[in-house]
Amino acid sequence: MNREVDLYKLRINIDRLLERLDDLAKIGAIENTDGCSRLALTDEDKEGRDLVVTWMRDLGMDITIDGIGNVVAVWTGPHTDPTLKPVMTGSHIDTVKTGGRYDGNLGVLAGLEVVETLAEAGISTRHPLAVGFFTDEEGSRFPPDMLGSLVYVGGMSLEDGLDTVGIDGAVLGDELERIGYRGGAPCPAVAPHAFVELHIEQGPVLEAEGVTIGAVESVQGISWTEITIKGQSNHAGTTPMHLRRDPGYAAARIATFVRELALELGGRQVATVGQIKLHPNLVNVVAANATITVDLRNTEEAILQQAEQRLVEFCDRLAEDEKVTITTRSLARFEPVVFDPEVVDRVAHTAAELGYSVKRMPSGAGHDAQMLARVCPTAMIFTPSWEGLSHNPFEFTAPEDLEAGTNVLLHVLAALANENGYNK
Amino acid sequence: MNREVDLYKLRINIDRLLERLDDLAKIGAIENTDGCSRLALTDEDKEGRDLVVTWMRDLGMDITIDGIGNVVAVWTGPHTDPTLKPVMTGSHIDTVKTGGRYDGNLGVLAGLEVVETLAEAGISTRHPLAVGFFTDEEGSRFPPDMLGSLVYVGGMSLEDGLDTVGIDGAVLGDELERIGYRGGAPCPAVAPHAFVELHIEQGPVLEAEGVTIGAVESVQGISWTEITIKGQSNHAGTTPMHLRRDPGYAAARIATFVRELALELGGRQVATVGQIKLHPNLVNVVAANATITVDLRNTEEAILQQAEQRLVEFCDRLAEDEKVTITTRSLARFEPVVFDPEVVDRVAHTAAELGYSVKRMPSGAGHDAQMLARVCPTAMIFTPSWEGLSHNPFEFTAPEDLEAGTNVLLHVLAALANENGYNK
Repeated sequence: MNREVDLYKLRINIDRLLERLDDLAKIGAIENTDGCSRLALTDEDKEGRDLVVTWMRDLGMDITIDGIGNVVAVWTGPHTDPTLKPVMTGSHIDTVKTGGRYDGNLGVLAGLEVVETLAEAGISTRHPLAVGFFTDEEGSRFPPDMLGSLVYVGGMSLEDGLDTVGIDGAVLGDELERIGYRGGAPCPAVAPHAFVELHIEQGPVLEAEGVTIGAVESVQGISWTEITIKGQSNHAGTTPMHLRRDPGYAAARIATFVRELALELGGRQVATVGQIKLHPNLVNVVAANATITVDLRNTEEAILQQAEQRLVEFCDRLAEDEKVTITTRSLARFEPVVFDPEVVDRVAHTAAELGYSVKRMPSGAGHDAQMLARVCPTAMIFTPSWEGLSHNPFEFTAPEDLEAGTNVLLHVLAALANENGYNK
Repeated sequence: MNREVDLYKLRINIDRLLERLDDLAKIGAIENTDGCSRLALTDEDKEGRDLVVTWMRDLGMDITIDGIGNVVAVWTGPHTDPTLKPVMTGSHIDTVKTGGRYDGNLGVLAGLEVVETLAEAGISTRHPLAVGFFTDEEGSRFPPDMLGSLVYVGGMSLEDGLDTVGIDGAVLGDELERIGYRGGAPCPAVAPHAFVELHIEQGPVLEAEGVTIGAVESVQGISWTEITIKGQSNHAGTTPMHLRRDPGYAAARIATFVRELALELGGRQVATVGQIKLHPNLVNVVAANATITVDLRNTEEAILQQAEQRLVEFCDRLAEDEKVTITTRSLARFEPVVFDPEVVDRVAHTAAELGYSVKRMPSGAGHDAQMLARVCPTAMIFTPSWEGLSHNPFEFTAPEDLEAGTNVLLHVLAALANENGYNK
């Protein structure tokens, strides 16, 4: 029997994948929606972990849990060389408080579907395949996000990770012990041969352009700044305009500037003011102070730095004009991540060979894959998100798109795992 | 003894006034500040009312309480004609949640100081003098503001007033019963001969111009609009700028437009966005919706209407450009109030005769006097506010300014109460 021909014709079983997505989504389900709520290391997260580990075990995979709770299951077929480093896929199964059923879960369960598809067909890969789920990717309970994969690649010490204090005051290490997921496998882990993550786009681009598969070339660099403005609270009726020092106005002016800046810089620059807080926030009181956040992202580090610089200069001028004080604090800063061009090409070509439309694109959101990119050749596969919805119980990706993305994952993983000496 | 000469030389006792202000401010005092917190019809308000009523009684005044809890004390000297309508002064003793010790309290306690000064000097006025405090002027607990004086002049029925539900769910009538201030005097009340209210400016103009007394000619018209903007919540990283429908941006653009509008209309036009709420208000999420308030004020009704119209037109264009829906709701609308020119002249001339600098000016804030203006000749006297601070525990007016204002009140009330047939 010609194994190559068999592999070429192989396709995943979408019904089985949908059933697993559905079973996992029942844990922490949000009433009257398809969404779910499984904040990291809560009882719901434990229950979700237990279910996925059961599936891994049923597939005969070899399961290890590391010190920060990352779970990795390794599959070796009859002809696999177990001494080779595995080709890895995976994502996370924690969700934001009001999350959807696809984000994160898809990348993990699609990995299991790939393994089951290969096992069922009696096909082995040369390298083992690994499917992992990383702890606390969302960072909703324990900031920062992508914490588990950061520890996995050695970007944060295990001790610092375990000491992380959650927004509810809980300590990450304690919660990990409590739910029984503090394992013994070492962090950082041995780097895999390669890493590929399947994820929903979480944005509107693929849907808007009618494209099925995104070959993700990079992750945008992120710059989050909190801006605090102090002025003079005054009566809205009795204070002439020329005597005002209005933080509410200054906050609004920054928000409109940020839009102007994004349009002027063009390209992939995005800029968002998603949070504005005025104090005391009353209809007839000129605010005493205001806090806003600015989220700047670009795939080009140089342009991102330019945007940051322009924002600082604008705030300086504004503070002088409005006679307010403006202070800024960096909430997060990540440089853009560029994925491995050969793995990206592999994704793009595989999608095309399978007959799916494909677009090379950046990721606007952060993903575990960007951490893995520090230690091995890495790329991502995107599938469309209905109306770009994300972190939302109404998040939706059509079954045919899930099927397409998982078939691309199957063939990319199989190809990488059958190569000689890919890991340059 | 020539009574005219005596009256001309008469001055109030500032120490006595300061002591009363201090005693009243101890009730509901805000720790480590000079401020106080006596929301309408709370236990603190009751305690404040009891103290002021005791003082009224000690001055031999005749006290009536009406159905909405307004307290009016009438003083008749030995030569007063008790059949004439009283010349009235007063204000309110409820405060905002974090209020100062002057706002409202000054106008009431200055009235008592005027009575005590006259009584001590053995001087009678032809008309009786009345000193009142009106229920719930601030409207902080039971919107709308100036509720008690509105009922007093017949602008709201007693039943509607009593049925008012507070922000804490309490019913005004129940709370009035509870604290024992639901009286039997009729509402609306018989109109006084004239009404003059002394109040702190609550704005920065007198201080900025170095003027001691404001002769208040009018109260600005007020237009409060709540604007609700609905767009599309999206991921701040994955949503290209051209696919956004961002209510946060739209809210900010309205806030900057409102500033531009005020500067363009000039004159006494003021415009404030004091409240902005985004939902979900997260750093990395394009908001789903936003609510902001716009406070527009002008002494000229025609220009105020023009400002309102321009705001509507701007919102219409913005909704189209940003592909958001914008709905507006009027929260409050008062036309400008013009005070009686003769009473205003009387205030200005009296201040000048007493040697104080004086400026004719509008009031930017609402006051009980604007309700009384519906039924009798009315004006107001302003004293400077330190840094224009108002509704703030650090609200402050210098003792010499309080003294000046109360001396002007004394001589204006005495003159009005000695006139023949002023009430045209």
